[in-house]
Amino acid sequence: MNKYVHGYNENEANRLNNQADSLANLIHFDSIWNEGSLILEAGCGVGAQTKTVANHNPKSKFISIDISEDSIKEAQALIKSKQIENVEFLVADIFDLPFENQKFDHIFLCFVLEHLTNPVQALGKLKSKIKDNGTITIIEGDHGSTYFHPESEFADKAIQCQVELQRRYGGDANIGRKLFPMLEKSGFNKIAVSPRQVYVDDSNPKWVEGFTKNTFIAMIEGIKEDAISNNLIDKEVFERGIKDLYNTANGGGTFCYTFFKGKAVNFLS
Amino acid sequence: MNKYVHGYNENEANRLNNQADSLANLIHFDSIWNEGSLILEAGCGVGAQTKTVANHNPKSKFISIDISEDSIKEAQALIKSKQIENVEFLVADIFDLPFENQKFDHIFLCFVLEHLTNPVQALGKLKSKIKDNGTITIIEGDHGSTYFHPESEFADKAIQCQVELQRRYGGDANIGRKLFPMLEKSGFNKIAVSPRQVYVDDSNPKWVEGFTKNTFIAMIEGIKEDAISNNLIDKEVFERGIKDLYNTANGGGTFCYTFFKGKAVNFLS
Repeated sequence: MNKYVHGYNENEANRLNNQADSLANLIHFDSIWNEGSLILEAGCGVGAQTKTVANHNPKSKFISIDISEDSIKEAQALIKSKQIENVEFLVADIFDLPFENQKFDHIFLCFVLEHLTNPVQALGKLKSKIKDNGTITIIEGDHGSTYFHPESEFADKAIQCQVELQRRYGGDANIGRKLFPMLEKSGFNKIAVSPRQVYVDDSNPKWVEGFTKNTFIAMIEGIKEDAISNNLIDKEVFERGIKDLYNTANGGGTFCYTFFKGKAVNFLS
Repeated sequence: MNKYVHGYNENEANRLNNQADSLANLIHFDSIWNEGSLILEAGCGVGAQTKTVANHNPKSKFISIDISEDSIKEAQALIKSKQIENVEFLVADIFDLPFENQKFDHIFLCFVLEHLTNPVQALGKLKSKIKDNGTITIIEGDHGSTYFHPESEFADKAIQCQVELQRRYGGDANIGRKLFPMLEKSGFNKIAVSPRQVYVDDSNPKWVEGFTKNTFIAMIEGIKEDAISNNLIDKEVFERGIKDLYNTANGGGTFCYTFFKGKAVNFLS
Protein backbone atom coordinates (compact mmCIF):
# COMPACT_ATOMS: atom_id res chain seq x y z
CA MET A 1 0.00 0.00 0.00
CA ASN A 2 1.03 3.61 -0.41
CA LYS A 3 2.98 4.91 2.51
CA TYR A 4 0.88 8.01 2.98
CA VAL A 5 -2.38 6.13 3.34
CA HIS A 6 -3.76 6.43 6.82
CA GLY A 7 -4.14 3.37 8.98
CA TYR A 8 -1.29 1.12 7.93
CA ASN A 9 0.83 1.15 11.03
CA GLU A 10 0.21 1.05 14.75
CA ASN A 11 0.66 4.75 15.49
CA GLU A 12 -1.62 5.60 12.61
CA ALA A 13 -4.21 3.17 13.92
CA ASN A 14 -4.05 4.82 17.35
CA ARG A 15 -4.33 8.24 15.77
CA LEU A 16 -7.36 7.22 13.75
CA ASN A 17 -9.03 5.76 16.82
CA ASN A 18 -8.37 8.96 18.78
CA GLN A 19 -9.74 10.92 15.87
CA ALA A 20 -12.91 8.88 15.74
CA ASP A 21 -13.47 9.40 19.46
CA SER A 22 -13.09 13.19 19.41
CA LEU A 23 -15.02 13.63 16.19
CA ALA A 24 -17.65 10.98 16.75
CA ASN A 25 -20.37 13.33 17.86
CA LEU A 26 -19.80 15.89 15.14
CA ILE A 27 -19.79 13.49 12.22
CA HIS A 28 -21.78 10.52 13.55
CA PHE A 29 -24.61 11.90 15.68
CA ASP A 30 -26.89 11.28 12.70
CA SER A 31 -25.23 8.08 11.45
CA ILE A 32 -28.38 6.15 12.22
CA TRP A 33 -30.46 3.81 10.09
CA ASN A 34 -33.77 2.07 10.54
CA GLU A 35 -33.63 -1.01 12.77
CA GLY A 36 -33.03 -4.31 11.04
CA SER A 37 -31.05 -2.80 8.18
CA LEU A 38 -28.26 -4.62 6.41
CA ILE A 39 -25.52 -2.02 5.96
CA LEU A 40 -22.34 -2.23 3.93
CA GLU A 41 -19.44 -0.27 5.35
CA ALA A 42 -17.09 0.13 2.40
CA GLY A 43 -13.46 0.71 3.33
CA CYS A 44 -13.63 0.17 7.08
CA GLY A 45 -9.85 0.39 7.56
CA VAL A 46 -8.86 -0.41 11.14
CA GLY A 47 -12.45 -0.08 12.34
CA ALA A 48 -12.19 3.41 13.78
CA GLN A 49 -15.63 4.41 12.42
CA THR A 50 -17.04 0.88 12.53
CA LYS A 51 -17.12 0.82 16.30
CA THR A 52 -19.11 4.05 16.43
CA VAL A 53 -21.71 3.29 13.76
CA ALA A 54 -22.16 -0.31 14.93
CA ASN A 55 -22.65 0.93 18.49
CA HIS A 56 -25.18 3.54 17.34
CA ASN A 57 -27.19 0.94 15.42
CA PRO A 58 -27.23 -2.21 17.56
CA LYS A 59 -30.29 -3.68 15.83
CA SER A 60 -28.83 -3.37 12.34
CA LYS A 61 -26.18 -5.63 10.83
CA PHE A 62 -22.98 -4.32 9.27
CA ILE A 63 -20.82 -5.99 6.67
CA SER A 64 -17.56 -4.07 6.82
CA ILE A 65 -15.07 -4.54 4.02
CA ASP A 66 -11.57 -3.33 3.32
CA ILE A 67 -9.03 -4.16 0.64
CA SER A 68 -6.28 -4.58 3.24
CA GLU A 69 -6.20 -7.89 5.11
CA ASP A 70 -4.05 -6.32 7.84
CA SER A 71 -6.59 -3.56 8.43
CA ILE A 72 -9.44 -6.08 8.56
CA LYS A 73 -7.56 -8.07 11.21
CA GLU A 74 -7.05 -4.95 13.30
CA ALA A 75 -10.66 -3.92 12.85
CA GLN A 76 -11.84 -7.38 13.91
CA ALA A 77 -9.70 -7.26 17.04
CA LEU A 78 -10.95 -3.77 17.90
CA ILE A 79 -14.61 -4.67 17.46
CA LYS A 80 -14.15 -7.87 19.48
CA SER A 81 -12.44 -5.92 22.29
CA LYS A 82 -15.47 -3.59 22.39
CA GLN A 83 -17.81 -6.59 22.59
CA ILE A 84 -19.69 -5.38 19.51
CA GLU A 85 -21.43 -8.27 17.80
CA ASN A 86 -23.33 -6.82 14.83
CA VAL A 87 -20.38 -6.56 12.43
CA GLU A 88 -19.08 -9.11 9.95
CA PHE A 89 -15.72 -8.39 8.30
CA LEU A 90 -14.56 -9.28 4.83
CA VAL A 91 -11.48 -8.53 2.72
CA ALA A 92 -12.95 -7.12 -0.50
CA ASP A 93 -12.40 -4.50 -3.19
CA ILE A 94 -14.92 -1.70 -3.72
CA PHE A 95 -14.35 -2.01 -7.46
CA ASP A 96 -15.05 -5.76 -7.44
CA LEU A 97 -17.70 -6.27 -4.79
CA PRO A 98 -18.50 -9.93 -3.97
CA PHE A 99 -22.23 -9.28 -3.41
CA GLU A 100 -25.33 -9.69 -5.52
CA ASN A 101 -26.93 -6.49 -6.78
CA GLN A 102 -29.34 -4.68 -4.46
CA LYS A 103 -28.21 -6.68 -1.46
CA PHE A 104 -27.94 -3.81 1.01
CA ASP A 105 -30.46 -1.51 2.61
CA HIS A 106 -27.81 1.15 3.08
CA ILE A 107 -24.15 1.82 2.40
CA PHE A 108 -21.77 3.84 4.55
CA LEU A 109 -18.28 5.17 3.74
CA CYS A 110 -16.03 7.35 5.85
CA PHE A 111 -12.65 8.74 4.72
CA VAL A 112 -12.51 6.33 1.77
CA LEU A 113 -13.25 8.22 -1.45
CA GLU A 114 -10.35 10.59 -0.72
CA HIS A 115 -7.98 7.69 -1.46
CA LEU A 116 -9.52 6.50 -4.72
CA THR A 117 -8.42 7.47 -8.21
CA ASN A 118 -11.95 7.26 -9.54
CA PRO A 119 -14.39 7.97 -6.72
CA VAL A 120 -17.36 8.47 -9.07
CA GLN A 121 -16.80 5.02 -10.55
CA ALA A 122 -16.63 3.61 -7.02
CA LEU A 123 -19.96 5.26 -6.21
CA GLY A 124 -21.46 3.63 -9.30
CA LYS A 125 -20.22 0.20 -8.19
CA LEU A 126 -21.62 0.74 -4.71
CA LYS A 127 -24.91 2.08 -6.03
CA SER A 128 -25.62 -1.22 -7.80
CA LYS A 129 -25.54 -2.99 -4.44
CA ILE A 130 -28.18 -0.75 -2.82
CA LYS A 131 -31.84 -1.73 -2.75
CA ASP A 132 -34.47 0.49 -4.32
CA ASN A 133 -35.03 3.46 -2.01
CA GLY A 134 -31.94 2.58 0.04
CA THR A 135 -29.39 5.22 0.97
CA ILE A 136 -25.72 5.95 0.80
CA THR A 137 -23.92 8.00 3.48
CA ILE A 138 -20.47 9.43 2.86
CA ILE A 139 -18.14 11.36 5.16
CA GLU A 140 -15.00 13.03 3.88
CA GLY A 141 -12.62 15.74 5.02
CA ASP A 142 -11.30 18.61 2.94
CA HIS A 143 -7.78 19.84 3.63
CA GLY A 144 -8.45 23.01 1.65
CA SER A 145 -10.91 23.93 4.40
CA THR A 146 -8.04 24.33 6.87
CA TYR A 147 -7.23 27.78 8.21
CA PHE A 148 -5.99 29.05 11.50
CA HIS A 149 -4.65 31.89 13.58
CA PRO A 150 -1.86 32.88 13.62
CA GLU A 151 -1.58 32.44 9.87
CA SER A 152 1.65 30.90 8.53
CA GLU A 153 2.85 30.36 4.98
CA PHE A 154 5.15 27.64 6.32
CA ALA A 155 2.24 25.76 7.83
CA ASP A 156 0.29 26.22 4.59
CA LYS A 157 3.21 24.69 2.67
CA ALA A 158 3.47 21.71 5.03
CA ILE A 159 -0.26 21.03 4.66
CA GLN A 160 0.02 21.40 0.90
CA CYS A 161 2.57 18.54 0.94
CA GLN A 162 -0.13 16.22 2.26
CA VAL A 163 -2.50 17.39 -0.49
CA GLU A 164 0.19 16.88 -3.14
CA LEU A 165 1.29 13.45 -1.84
CA GLN A 166 -2.30 12.26 -1.77
CA ARG A 167 -2.76 13.57 -5.32
CA ARG A 168 0.37 11.75 -6.52
CA TYR A 169 -0.93 8.51 -5.05
CA GLY A 170 -4.18 9.03 -6.93
CA GLY A 171 -6.29 10.47 -4.13
CA ASP A 172 -7.85 13.85 -3.41
CA ALA A 173 -7.41 15.52 -0.02
CA ASN A 174 -9.85 18.29 -1.01
CA ILE A 175 -12.70 15.95 -1.84
CA GLY A 176 -15.22 17.06 0.80
CA ARG A 177 -16.46 20.02 -1.23
CA LYS A 178 -17.10 17.69 -4.17
CA LEU A 179 -19.49 15.24 -2.50
CA PHE A 180 -22.63 16.82 -3.94
CA PRO A 181 -21.50 16.89 -7.60
CA MET A 182 -20.01 13.38 -7.30
CA LEU A 183 -23.25 11.95 -5.92
CA GLU A 184 -25.11 13.78 -8.70
CA LYS A 185 -22.82 12.35 -11.39
CA SER A 186 -23.30 8.87 -9.93
CA GLY A 187 -27.04 9.08 -10.45
CA PHE A 188 -28.18 9.26 -6.83
CA ASN A 189 -31.39 11.04 -5.87
CA LYS A 190 -32.40 13.42 -3.09
CA ILE A 191 -28.80 14.39 -2.39
CA ALA A 192 -28.14 16.34 0.79
CA VAL A 193 -24.68 17.44 1.90
CA SER A 194 -23.91 19.18 5.16
CA PRO A 195 -20.62 20.68 6.30
CA ARG A 196 -19.42 19.69 9.77
CA GLN A 197 -17.03 22.40 10.78
CA VAL A 198 -14.50 21.95 13.53
CA TYR A 199 -13.74 25.33 15.09
CA VAL A 200 -11.23 25.27 17.92
CA ASP A 201 -10.31 28.06 20.31
CA ASP A 202 -9.01 28.30 23.87
CA SER A 203 -12.48 27.80 25.31
CA ASN A 204 -12.27 24.12 24.38
CA PRO A 205 -8.96 22.55 25.46
CA LYS A 206 -10.29 19.07 24.69
CA TRP A 207 -10.56 19.94 21.00
CA VAL A 208 -7.20 21.72 21.04
CA GLU A 209 -5.66 18.44 22.20
CA GLY A 210 -7.95 15.95 20.50
CA PHE A 211 -8.32 17.61 17.14
CA THR A 212 -5.77 20.34 16.42
CA LYS A 213 -2.79 18.54 17.96
CA ASN A 214 -3.57 14.82 18.03
CA THR A 215 -5.57 14.59 14.83
CA PHE A 216 -4.61 17.30 12.38
CA ILE A 217 -1.03 18.21 13.28
CA ALA A 218 -0.24 14.53 13.96
CA MET A 219 -1.43 13.72 10.43
CA ILE A 220 0.78 16.40 8.85
CA GLU A 221 3.77 15.40 11.01
CA GLY A 222 3.26 11.85 9.78
CA ILE A 223 4.15 12.72 6.18
CA LYS A 224 7.39 14.52 7.01
CA GLU A 225 9.80 11.96 5.59
CA ASP A 226 7.64 11.23 2.57
CA ALA A 227 7.32 14.95 1.77
CA ILE A 228 11.05 15.62 2.14
CA SER A 229 12.20 12.52 0.25
CA ASN A 230 9.84 13.47 -2.59
CA ASN A 231 11.46 16.93 -2.68
CA LEU A 232 8.14 18.63 -2.04
CA ILE A 233 9.57 20.84 0.69
CA ASP A 234 12.78 21.68 2.55
CA LYS A 235 13.18 20.06 5.94
CA GLU A 236 13.52 23.47 7.61
CA VAL A 237 10.36 24.82 6.01
CA PHE A 238 8.40 21.72 6.98
CA GLU A 239 9.63 21.88 10.58
CA ARG A 240 8.81 25.58 10.80
CA GLY A 241 5.36 24.76 9.41
CA ILE A 242 4.78 22.17 12.13
CA LYS A 243 6.03 24.59 14.77
CA ASP A 244 3.63 27.24 13.48
CA LEU A 245 0.76 24.74 13.51
CA TYR A 246 1.46 24.00 17.17
CA ASN A 247 1.45 27.76 17.65
CA THR A 248 -2.26 27.77 16.76
CA ALA A 249 -2.81 25.36 19.66
CA ASN A 250 -0.69 26.94 22.35
CA GLY A 251 -2.94 29.69 23.67
CA GLY A 252 -4.40 32.62 21.75
CA GLY A 253 -4.78 30.68 18.51
CA THR A 254 -7.72 29.24 16.60
CA PHE A 255 -8.05 26.36 14.15
CA CYS A 256 -10.72 25.49 11.57
CA TYR A 257 -11.35 22.37 9.50
CA THR A 258 -14.51 21.16 7.80
CA PHE A 259 -15.77 17.63 7.20
CA PHE A 260 -18.60 17.02 4.78
CA LYS A 261 -21.33 14.46 5.15
CA GLY A 262 -23.41 13.50 2.14
CA LYS A 263 -26.54 11.39 2.08
CA ALA A 264 -28.51 10.33 -0.97
CA VAL A 265 -31.20 7.88 -1.99
CA ASN A 266 -31.04 5.21 -4.69
CA PHE A 267 -34.25 5.21 -6.73
CA LEU A 268 -34.27 2.31 -9.17
CA SER A 269 -37.27 3.46 -11.15
CA MET B 1 -13.19 57.20 2.72
CA ASN B 2 -11.14 54.40 1.20
CA LYS B 3 -12.53 53.27 -2.11
CA TYR B 4 -12.61 49.60 -1.22
CA VAL B 5 -14.75 50.09 1.84
CA HIS B 6 -18.17 48.54 1.40
CA GLY B 7 -21.24 50.71 1.45
CA TYR B 8 -20.13 54.01 -0.04
CA ASN B 9 -22.06 54.01 -3.29
CA GLU B 10 -25.53 53.05 -4.39
CA ASN B 11 -24.70 49.67 -5.95
CA GLU B 12 -22.73 48.74 -2.90
CA ALA B 13 -25.64 49.73 -0.70
CA ASN B 14 -27.96 47.51 -2.72
CA ARG B 15 -25.49 44.67 -2.55
CA LEU B 16 -25.18 44.97 1.19
CA ASN B 17 -28.95 45.00 1.61
CA ASN B 18 -29.29 41.87 -0.56
CA GLN B 19 -26.55 40.27 1.47
CA ALA B 20 -28.29 41.03 4.72
CA ASP B 21 -31.52 39.49 3.45
CA SER B 22 -29.99 36.20 2.33
CA LEU B 23 -27.74 35.87 5.33
CA ALA B 24 -30.12 37.22 7.93
CA ASN B 25 -31.21 33.88 9.26
CA LEU B 26 -27.74 32.37 9.41
CA ILE B 27 -26.07 35.21 11.26
CA HIS B 28 -28.99 36.90 13.04
CA PHE B 29 -31.35 34.18 14.23
CA ASP B 30 -29.82 34.59 17.68
CA SER B 31 -29.27 38.36 17.52
CA ILE B 32 -31.75 38.84 20.33
CA TRP B 33 -31.49 40.71 23.60
CA ASN B 34 -33.68 41.02 26.66
CA GLU B 35 -36.64 43.36 26.22
CA GLY B 36 -36.13 46.95 27.21
CA SER B 37 -32.40 46.92 26.47
CA LEU B 38 -30.51 49.95 25.26
CA ILE B 39 -28.23 48.66 22.52
CA LEU B 40 -25.40 50.45 20.73
CA GLU B 41 -24.90 49.37 17.14
CA ALA B 42 -21.37 50.50 16.36
CA GLY B 43 -20.66 51.04 12.65
CA CYS B 44 -24.16 50.62 11.24
CA GLY B 45 -23.16 51.66 7.71
CA VAL B 46 -26.19 51.94 5.43
CA GLY B 47 -28.38 50.09 7.93
CA ALA B 48 -28.28 46.67 6.26
CA GLN B 49 -27.99 44.88 9.62
CA THR B 50 -29.84 47.56 11.58
CA LYS B 51 -33.15 46.71 9.96
CA THR B 52 -32.82 43.05 10.90
CA VAL B 53 -31.72 43.43 14.50
CA ALA B 54 -34.17 46.28 15.17
CA ASN B 55 -36.97 44.16 13.72
CA HIS B 56 -35.96 41.16 15.84
CA ASN B 57 -35.94 43.25 19.02
CA PRO B 58 -38.91 45.62 18.78
CA LYS B 59 -39.04 46.25 22.53
CA SER B 60 -35.40 47.28 22.79
CA LYS B 61 -33.94 50.60 21.70
CA PHE B 62 -30.98 50.90 19.34
CA ILE B 63 -28.58 53.78 19.04
CA SER B 64 -26.84 53.16 15.71
CA ILE B 65 -23.70 55.09 14.94
CA ASP B 66 -21.43 55.41 11.93
CA ILE B 67 -18.49 57.65 11.15
CA SER B 68 -19.92 58.43 7.69
CA GLU B 69 -22.67 61.02 7.53
CA ASP B 70 -23.72 59.75 4.09
CA SER B 71 -24.15 56.22 5.40
CA ILE B 72 -26.17 57.45 8.36
CA LYS B 73 -28.49 59.33 6.00
CA GLU B 74 -29.03 56.20 3.91
CA ALA B 75 -29.55 54.08 6.99
CA GLN B 76 -32.10 56.55 8.33
CA ALA B 77 -34.02 56.50 5.03
CA LEU B 78 -33.97 52.70 4.94
CA ILE B 79 -35.21 52.31 8.51
CA LYS B 80 -37.91 54.93 7.90
CA SER B 81 -39.03 53.11 4.74
CA LYS B 82 -39.39 49.91 6.78
CA GLN B 83 -41.45 51.76 9.39
CA ILE B 84 -39.05 50.71 12.12
CA GLU B 85 -39.19 53.10 15.04
CA ASN B 86 -36.80 51.79 17.69
CA VAL B 87 -33.58 53.14 16.18
CA GLU B 88 -31.87 56.47 16.75
CA PHE B 89 -29.00 57.38 14.43
CA LEU B 90 -25.91 59.40 15.20
CA VAL B 91 -22.72 60.29 13.31
CA ALA B 92 -19.97 59.21 15.69
CA ASP B 93 -16.52 57.65 15.85
CA ILE B 94 -15.96 54.34 17.65
CA PHE B 95 -12.63 55.68 18.89
CA ASP B 96 -14.24 58.81 20.33
CA LEU B 97 -17.65 57.74 21.54
CA PRO B 98 -19.95 60.58 22.68
CA PHE B 99 -21.53 58.55 25.50
CA GLU B 100 -20.96 58.32 29.22
CA ASN B 101 -19.28 55.12 30.46
CA GLN B 102 -21.53 52.10 31.11
CA LYS B 103 -24.42 53.66 29.22
CA PHE B 104 -25.44 50.58 27.23
CA ASP B 105 -26.92 47.22 28.18
CA HIS B 106 -25.43 45.64 25.08
CA ILE B 107 -23.29 46.47 22.07
CA PHE B 108 -23.57 45.00 18.59
CA LEU B 109 -21.15 45.21 15.65
CA CYS B 110 -21.41 43.54 12.25
CA PHE B 111 -18.72 43.75 9.54
CA VAL B 112 -16.99 46.64 11.29
CA LEU B 113 -13.80 45.41 12.97
CA GLU B 114 -12.54 44.11 9.60
CA HIS B 115 -12.10 47.77 8.53
CA LEU B 116 -10.25 49.03 11.59
CA THR B 117 -6.50 49.34 11.99
CA ASN B 118 -6.70 48.59 15.69
CA PRO B 119 -9.74 46.43 16.38
CA VAL B 120 -8.60 45.46 19.88
CA GLN B 121 -8.34 49.13 20.82
CA ALA B 122 -11.85 49.66 19.40
CA LEU B 123 -13.13 46.80 21.55
CA GLY B 124 -11.58 48.46 24.59
CA LYS B 125 -13.32 51.76 23.80
CA LEU B 126 -16.63 49.96 23.32
CA LYS B 127 -16.18 47.89 26.47
CA SER B 128 -16.07 51.04 28.62
CA LYS B 129 -19.59 51.92 27.42
CA ILE B 130 -21.15 48.58 28.48
CA LYS B 131 -22.87 48.16 31.83
CA ASP B 132 -21.65 45.57 34.32
CA ASN B 133 -22.80 42.14 33.10
CA GLY B 134 -23.79 43.57 29.70
CA THR B 135 -22.73 41.87 26.49
CA ILE B 136 -20.99 42.55 23.21
CA THR B 137 -21.95 40.71 20.01
CA ILE B 138 -19.67 40.78 16.98
CA ILE B 139 -20.15 39.32 13.50
CA GLU B 140 -17.31 39.21 10.99
CA GLY B 141 -16.49 37.35 7.79
CA ASP B 142 -13.20 35.67 6.96
CA HIS B 143 -12.11 35.66 3.32
CA GLY B 144 -9.52 33.00 4.08
CA SER B 145 -12.43 30.66 4.76
CA THR B 146 -13.40 30.76 1.07
CA TYR B 147 -13.04 27.60 -0.99
CA PHE B 148 -15.00 26.15 -3.84
CA HIS B 149 -15.31 23.57 -6.57
CA PRO B 150 -14.00 23.66 -9.23
CA GLU B 151 -10.81 25.00 -7.68
CA SER B 152 -9.05 27.84 -9.51
CA GLU B 153 -5.74 29.56 -8.84
CA PHE B 154 -7.05 32.55 -10.81
CA ALA B 155 -10.06 32.88 -8.55
CA ASP B 156 -7.78 32.50 -5.50
CA LYS B 157 -5.63 35.36 -6.82
CA ALA B 158 -8.64 37.62 -7.44
CA ILE B 159 -9.88 37.00 -3.89
CA GLN B 160 -6.39 37.62 -2.53
CA CYS B 161 -6.55 41.11 -4.11
CA GLN B 162 -9.47 41.95 -1.84
CA VAL B 163 -7.53 40.68 1.17
CA GLU B 164 -4.46 42.69 0.16
CA LEU B 165 -6.41 45.90 -0.60
CA GLN B 166 -8.17 45.67 2.72
CA ARG B 167 -4.81 45.12 4.43
CA ARG B 168 -3.30 48.18 2.68
CA TYR B 169 -6.19 50.30 3.88
CA GLY B 170 -5.53 49.13 7.42
CA GLY B 171 -8.19 46.43 7.64
CA ASP B 172 -8.18 42.65 7.91
CA ALA B 173 -10.35 40.52 5.63
CA ASN B 174 -9.39 37.37 7.56
CA ILE B 175 -10.52 38.69 10.91
CA GLY B 176 -13.31 36.17 11.65
CA ARG B 177 -10.95 33.51 12.97
CA LYS B 178 -9.45 36.06 15.37
CA LEU B 179 -12.61 37.07 17.24
CA PHE B 180 -11.94 34.85 20.23
CA PRO B 181 -8.35 36.00 20.89
CA MET B 182 -9.34 39.64 20.25
CA LEU B 183 -12.17 39.49 22.77
CA GLU B 184 -9.80 37.82 25.22
CA LYS B 185 -7.17 40.54 24.77
CA SER B 186 -9.83 43.20 25.29
CA GLY B 187 -10.64 41.81 28.72
CA PHE B 188 -14.11 40.43 28.05
CA ASN B 189 -15.46 37.43 29.98
CA LYS B 190 -17.37 34.29 29.09
CA ILE B 191 -16.35 34.53 25.44
CA ALA B 192 -18.16 32.25 22.99
CA VAL B 193 -17.49 32.23 19.25
CA SER B 194 -19.43 30.19 16.73
CA PRO B 195 -18.70 29.72 13.03
CA ARG B 196 -21.63 30.28 10.65
CA GLN B 197 -20.67 28.44 7.51
CA VAL B 198 -22.33 29.13 4.20
CA TYR B 199 -22.20 25.98 2.08
CA VAL B 200 -23.77 26.30 -1.35
CA ASP B 201 -24.51 23.54 -3.84
CA ASP B 202 -27.06 22.99 -6.63
CA SER B 203 -29.72 21.90 -4.15
CA ASN B 204 -30.14 25.51 -3.08
CA PRO B 205 -30.43 27.87 -6.09
CA LYS B 206 -31.48 30.73 -3.80
CA TRP B 207 -28.10 30.66 -2.10
CA VAL B 208 -26.28 30.24 -5.42
CA GLU B 209 -27.88 33.52 -6.53
CA GLY B 210 -28.13 35.33 -3.22
CA PHE B 211 -24.78 34.43 -1.77
CA THR B 212 -22.27 33.04 -4.27
CA LYS B 213 -23.17 35.39 -7.13
CA ASN B 214 -24.83 38.47 -5.65
CA THR B 215 -22.86 38.68 -2.43
CA PHE B 216 -19.43 37.11 -2.77
CA ILE B 217 -18.62 37.36 -6.47
CA ALA B 218 -20.22 40.83 -6.63
CA MET B 219 -17.89 41.93 -3.84
CA ILE B 220 -14.79 40.64 -5.62
CA GLU B 221 -15.92 42.12 -8.96
CA GLY B 222 -16.32 45.44 -7.16
CA ILE B 223 -12.58 45.77 -6.50
CA LYS B 224 -11.50 45.11 -10.10
CA GLU B 225 -10.31 48.62 -10.95
CA ASP B 226 -8.74 49.18 -7.57
CA ALA B 227 -6.85 45.87 -7.77
CA ILE B 228 -5.59 46.51 -11.31
CA SER B 229 -4.64 50.16 -10.75
CA ASN B 230 -2.71 49.10 -7.65
CA ASN B 231 -0.81 46.55 -9.78
CA LEU B 232 -1.95 43.70 -7.58
CA ILE B 233 -3.02 41.57 -10.54
CA ASP B 234 -3.18 41.51 -14.35
CA LYS B 235 -6.54 42.37 -15.85
CA GLU B 236 -6.66 39.01 -17.67
CA VAL B 237 -5.93 37.02 -14.52
CA PHE B 238 -8.55 38.93 -12.58
CA GLU B 239 -11.18 38.42 -15.28
CA ARG B 240 -10.34 34.72 -15.52
CA GLY B 241 -10.66 34.55 -11.73
CA ILE B 242 -14.14 36.08 -11.85
CA LYS B 243 -15.13 33.72 -14.68
CA ASP B 244 -13.92 30.78 -12.61
CA LEU B 245 -15.85 32.02 -9.60
CA TYR B 246 -19.03 32.10 -11.68
CA ASN B 247 -18.13 28.58 -12.73
CA THR B 248 -18.68 27.46 -9.14
CA ALA B 249 -22.25 28.81 -9.41
CA ASN B 250 -23.24 27.51 -12.82
CA GLY B 251 -24.21 23.92 -12.08
CA GLY B 252 -22.03 21.19 -10.62
CA GLY B 253 -20.07 23.55 -8.40
CA THR B 254 -19.96 24.22 -4.68
CA PHE B 255 -18.98 27.27 -2.64
CA CYS B 256 -18.01 27.69 1.02
CA TYR B 257 -17.56 30.76 3.19
CA THR B 258 -17.64 31.13 6.95
CA PHE B 259 -18.82 34.01 9.11
CA PHE B 260 -17.96 34.12 12.80
CA LYS B 261 -20.16 35.40 15.57
CA GLY B 262 -18.66 36.21 18.93
CA LYS B 263 -20.46 37.03 22.12
CA ALA B 264 -18.92 37.99 25.44
CA VAL B 265 -19.87 39.48 28.77
CA ASN B 266 -18.43 42.57 30.46
CA PHE B 267 -17.82 41.92 34.15
CA LEU B 268 -16.76 45.10 35.90
CA SER B 269 -15.74 43.42 39.13
